[in-house]
Amino acid sequence: MAETKPLVGIIMGSDSDLNVMQAAADMLTQFQIAFELTIVSAHRTPQWMFDYATSAKSRGLKVIVAGAGGAAHLPGMVASLTTLPVIGVPVKSSNSIDGWDSVLSILQMPGGVPVATVALNGAKNAGILAAQIIGSFDEEVSKRIADYKQSLSDEVMKKVEKMKTV
Amino acid sequence: MAETKPLVGIIMGSDSDLNVMQAAADMLTQFQIAFELTIVSAHRTPQWMFDYATSAKSRGLKVIVAGAGGAAHLPGMVASLTTLPVIGVPVKSSNSIDGWDSVLSILQMPGGVPVATVALNGAKNAGILAAQIIGSFDEEVSKRIADYKQSLSDEVMKKVEKMKTV
Amino acid sequence: MAETKPLVGIIMGSDSDLNVMQAAADMLTQFQIAFELTIVSAHRTPQWMFDYATSAKSRGLKVIVAGAGGAAHLPGMVASLTTLPVIGVPVKSSNSIDGWDSVLSILQMPGGVPVATVALNGAKNAGILAAQIIGSFDEEVSKRIADYKQSLSDEVMKKVEKMKTV
Amino acid sequence: MAETKPLVGIIMGSDSDLNVMQAAADMLTQFQIAFELTIVSAHRTPQWMFDYATSAKSRGLKVIVAGAGGAAHLPGMVASLTTLPVIGVPVKSSNSIDGWDSVLSILQMPGGVPVATVALNGAKNAGILAAQIIGSFDEEVSKRIADYKQSLSDEVMKKVEKMKTV
Amino acid sequence: MAETKPLVGIIMGSDSDLNVMQAAADMLTQFQIAFELTIVSAHRTPQWMFDYATSAKSRGLKVIVAGAGGAAHLPGMVASLTTLPVIGVPVKSSNSIDGWDSVLSILQMPGGVPVATVALNGAKNAGILAAQIIGSFDEEVSKRIADYKQSLSDEVMKKVEKMKTV
Amino acid sequence: MAETKPLVGIIMGSDSDLNVMQAAADMLTQFQIAFELTIVSAHRTPQWMFDYATSAKSRGLKVIVAGAGGAAHLPGMVASLTTLPVIGVPVKSSNSIDGWDSVLSILQMPGGVPVATVALNGAKNAGILAAQIIGSFDEEVSKRIADYKQSLSDEVMKKVEKMKTV
Amino acid sequence: MAETKPLVGIIMGSDSDLNVMQAAADMLTQFQIAFELTIVSAHRTPQWMFDYATSAKSRGLKVIVAGAGGAAHLPGMVASLTTLPVIGVPVKSSNSIDGWDSVLSILQMPGGVPVATVALNGAKNAGILAAQIIGSFDEEVSKRIADYKQSLSDEVMKKVEKMKTV
Amino acid sequence: MAETKPLVGIIMGSDSDLNVMQAAADMLTQFQIAFELTIVSAHRTPQWMFDYATSAKSRGLKVIVAGAGGAAHLPGMVASLTTLPVIGVPVKSSNSIDGWDSVLSILQMPGGVPVATVALNGAKNAGILAAQIIGSFDEEVSKRIADYKQSLSDEVMKKVEKMKTV
Repeated sequence: MAETKPLVGIIMGSDSDLNVMQAAADMLTQFQIAFELTIVSAHRTPQWMFDYATSAKSRGLKVIVAGAGGAAHLPGMVASLTTLPVIGVPVKSSNSIDGWDSVLSILQMPGGVPVATVALNGAKNAGILAAQIIGSFDEEVSKRIADYKQSLSDEVMKKVEKMKTV
Repeated sequence: MAETKPLVGIIMGSDSDLNVMQAAADMLTQFQIAFELTIVSAHRTPQWMFDYATSAKSRGLKVIVAGAGGAAHLPGMVASLTTLPVIGVPVKSSNSIDGWDSVLSILQMPGGVPVATVALNGAKNAGILAAQIIGSFDEEVSKRIADYKQSLSDEVMKKVEKMKTV
Repeated sequence: MAETKPLVGIIMGSDSDLNVMQAAADMLTQFQIAFELTIVSAHRTPQWMFDYATSAKSRGLKVIVAGAGGAAHLPGMVASLTTLPVIGVPVKSSNSIDGWDSVLSILQMPGGVPVATVALNGAKNAGILAAQIIGSFDEEVSKRIADYKQSLSDEVMKKVEKMKTV
Repeated sequence: MAETKPLVGIIMGSDSDLNVMQAAADMLTQFQIAFELTIVSAHRTPQWMFDYATSAKSRGLKVIVAGAGGAAHLPGMVASLTTLPVIGVPVKSSNSIDGWDSVLSILQMPGGVPVATVALNGAKNAGILAAQIIGSFDEEVSKRIADYKQSLSDEVMKKVEKMKTV
Repeated sequence: MAETKPLVGIIMGSDSDLNVMQAAADMLTQFQIAFELTIVSAHRTPQWMFDYATSAKSRGLKVIVAGAGGAAHLPGMVASLTTLPVIGVPVKSSNSIDGWDSVLSILQMPGGVPVATVALNGAKNAGILAAQIIGSFDEEVSKRIADYKQSLSDEVMKKVEKMKTV
Repeated sequence: MAETKPLVGIIMGSDSDLNVMQAAADMLTQFQIAFELTIVSAHRTPQWMFDYATSAKSRGLKVIVAGAGGAAHLPGMVASLTTLPVIGVPVKSSNSIDGWDSVLSILQMPGGVPVATVALNGAKNAGILAAQIIGSFDEEVSKRIADYKQSLSDEVMKKVEKMKTV
Repeated sequence: MAETKPLVGIIMGSDSDLNVMQAAADMLTQFQIAFELTIVSAHRTPQWMFDYATSAKSRGLKVIVAGAGGAAHLPGMVASLTTLPVIGVPVKSSNSIDGWDSVLSILQMPGGVPVATVALNGAKNAGILAAQIIGSFDEEVSKRIADYKQSLSDEVMKKVEKMKTV
Repeated sequence: MAETKPLVGIIMGSDSDLNVMQAAADMLTQFQIAFELTIVSAHRTPQWMFDYATSAKSRGLKVIVAGAGGAAHLPGMVASLTTLPVIGVPVKSSNSIDGWDSVLSILQMPGGVPVATVALNGAKNAGILAAQIIGSFDEEVSKRIADYKQSLSDEVMKKVEKMKTV
């Protein structure tokens, strides 16, 4: 990786969210952005959450990606404790009502404390969004995102061509 | 009042919630249960929330009633920081999507950290529920609740009689 | 168990709810709180529901935990018949529309008759909440809840440590 | 009226529901079907509800129309206490979440105890449905319903003609 | 069966609804009420629907039970074409959005044309409701319904006893 | 108008829908497409609906625009009775649950009988869509639609310019 | 096929939508209407979408059928770029919240740019609707649709007959 | 202002969204971040949208804030055309179904093209989030955000003090 000090912190309320949240880590790896990944539970480890969030900026993080399900308080509480941009990933956990609780309790933050919410289980997009934020000030990263977007397009166009020949 | 040391703490995320939350205070006054009432914002004053919640039990509180709207994190976060029962009141605030966000972000707490949720804007019932909890161990209060329930019934039956004569 | 006379009554509308409601019993067992558990159907055994609810307090119960699904009337009807605090568990039964009916018909009680509602299928939290209510007036129980909350935290922190070493 | 002994009982959870429920009475008056109308609150007067429902058939009622809002338990509980058909009217009361709670807590009854649910605030249709049930066994009433349906059609067709001339 | 001329017509929009709608037939069989059962599609066989509905009363039917899914127009259209009470069963068919479309397109009938709606997939209750309507004017049937309700209660109480001995 | 024989039939379930549905007529007038407009109630005038729909094609109509609210059966039933394309406009009528019933009972048609559904209260778009259908085979109309789309763009761009100078 | 130049363009946001969208192609084949089918992603290939939509009319297409899931922007964006009628198929893709996002982001187009929306996963109906649009101006196609509708009716009536003999 | 070249582009689908979106501009002004503000309609000015989005980065923008209502395609389409982070503001416009369409069509973006979604009508938070993104790489801005957050806390604590003296 180009940098070894983590720029992005990926946190989640429970290790059961890892199968969803791994996609954020994968995208950051692909964009060669150093990250850290750990568990921070708003409800079971509130003190750890406080410590994590209040020290995030001074530890060098630029963005925090936080995933949680049900009455998902982690992204919003972390956002209340830092000036860093916080990306929230609503996780459709087993205790969720079709994901609506996860979405609404992350998205509907009151004025003053935003959370950048992505789609339900949208950890992949959270990783890309974190990269875009960093890419706004890092031309190298920005270039990698542009390449990635081009590859998405190429992949579709290849299928388009293939269907023509059929 | 029979007691002067507050047994119930009524808190809310914003003073704009007061017109809803006052009903909880009114019911406790009616049941002669001492309470305190203040503003505690999970997102704007997280440290004050920590202090309030972690000291609640040692200050003599038996129950906490917490009201909030939108991505309502106050009841759940307070519940994570105390062993006291926490009653959550989803408030249909101006930034709420028909109240669904308030309801779901209070109700759908993960296993381990319950919030006793009442109806949307149900602060009156939160006050009664707090009294019932205290009444479980205080026969005086229990008696007052029984009288209150009887009065609800009497009021209906009086109307029933009145409609007969029409 | 420390006490043998039941302090908590766990009831459910159907024995098909038992696989969900057992979690409430398990938590009470863990907190060493005596409980009773039975079936009470609002719609099939209304008289038995009346008898159960109106005798609950005199039989020594301090809290009732009631679980039901679909048009779930058991928690609210029991609450109308006793001064004890009633905890309602919305069960996502097979005849439920994604759980919304269970949640709304328990949560949205009219002013005067509260039900302390927990998350969909949140029987575990119902058991903890019942313990918290008892713990408000029983320091032994309160201590056990504090220990339980600490164990939740420890469990997460152990995982946090483990992830560091990876 | 053709008959003086009430055949239909119209009940509602609160007198605040009367402005909605009056429409059921109006339709029965129009169809010349005797009815009684009163308040029965499942949550505030459970004993009165028991008495009302269990005596309904022996008092000569053929159908019960029950309206309620929020966590609306009245129609379902009355249905559990009588063999008569019960028509439920979900009322969009002030404490309702857009009417969804009223609808779901009346409609989603468990197998064994049906409630014939009509539209939100559909008291007019509840009155017509009660008349249709009686009309199934009373040719006079059936004729009046047929006339009513014809009048609905005539009214539309008159407007259709009027629009042609414009 | 006590009677051989059908009193109840059970219809459904598609034979794929039969696995749900059979429960209505089973309850009528249990209550010894003669019924007919067939397929009537509002959208594929509108003329057959017209013929079925307009002839229903003269053929001796007292109640129609109509089940359909998705944009379910059968119950409401049949109700517009007869003075008989029509019971609507929202079916959660494969083309349904969690059943909401089926429920709302049957329940929310305009003033003048009621449909007695039961729970999603609630065909069993539709059968019982049809029996209750007939039972309002047939003491034999009414007695059977009372027995059935007693058996529901007995079944629960037996389980209650059994749990005591455990 | 360029043509005098109506090519589009605009129908609605009630004259109370006219304030919404007028927008469809206005767009067709703007595109110089002849239309007829009348009331057809699926539930109050089923026979008139049958006659209207089955004669529509032979009377020269190319498209039908049908608006209705609540359990809106008009668009779907008309679609079942003609081979013409039917555009459905869900109307948020007073008896609707936030418009969801109108939308779902028009949109969720079963396989075999499509309704081209537009947005809630989207009568303007229904008129444009009808014009687009005609425009597919009428270059004059197609040209007018292209001009209309250009005017929409011009209107925005003028505002964009205006904001620059501010 | 009667014609070889495609009259209908079937496009979809991803090849994972093909198992749903194939049904549109199948119906067009059955109605002997020439079509083309390809992938056009609004989000991954915006330029290709622009090119496809702006050239559609000049290439001879009469109707476009566009399917997409989640935040489905393809149908609406294509509609903004052509004067042809666009039929939108909300696809319940894996990243969808029960299909609601797909439905609402296709249906709720602003005034000026309609999309003819069909049911969730309703590609079959999209194909029929495209045929109906063409059939409005092609008597041959119209005849085939009439035959198809007759066959739907015949199929039901055959089952009706079969059930009689049972 | 500290900088005169715009770092943030605020765009909205219609000038009717301006009363909501102004709050984003106000926050950026407060944080002394230069911005531009204009109208870009995905559906009425697709070419202008293309031009705006594809040139955004080269013109020096670091973040785009895009607001739209109903089937809101603007934020997602812009995100597909740039590597910059795009913040989406769901606007509860007059043609919206309680805001659900706006929220879901912005939030539920497919993998590969994220939109940082804020609360319904949450333009204020969009402005703060844009500032936080810039603040991640600009210590001056970061400091201003920290001050702002402190002021939010101070404001609440002043009210807390005031309530004590009452």
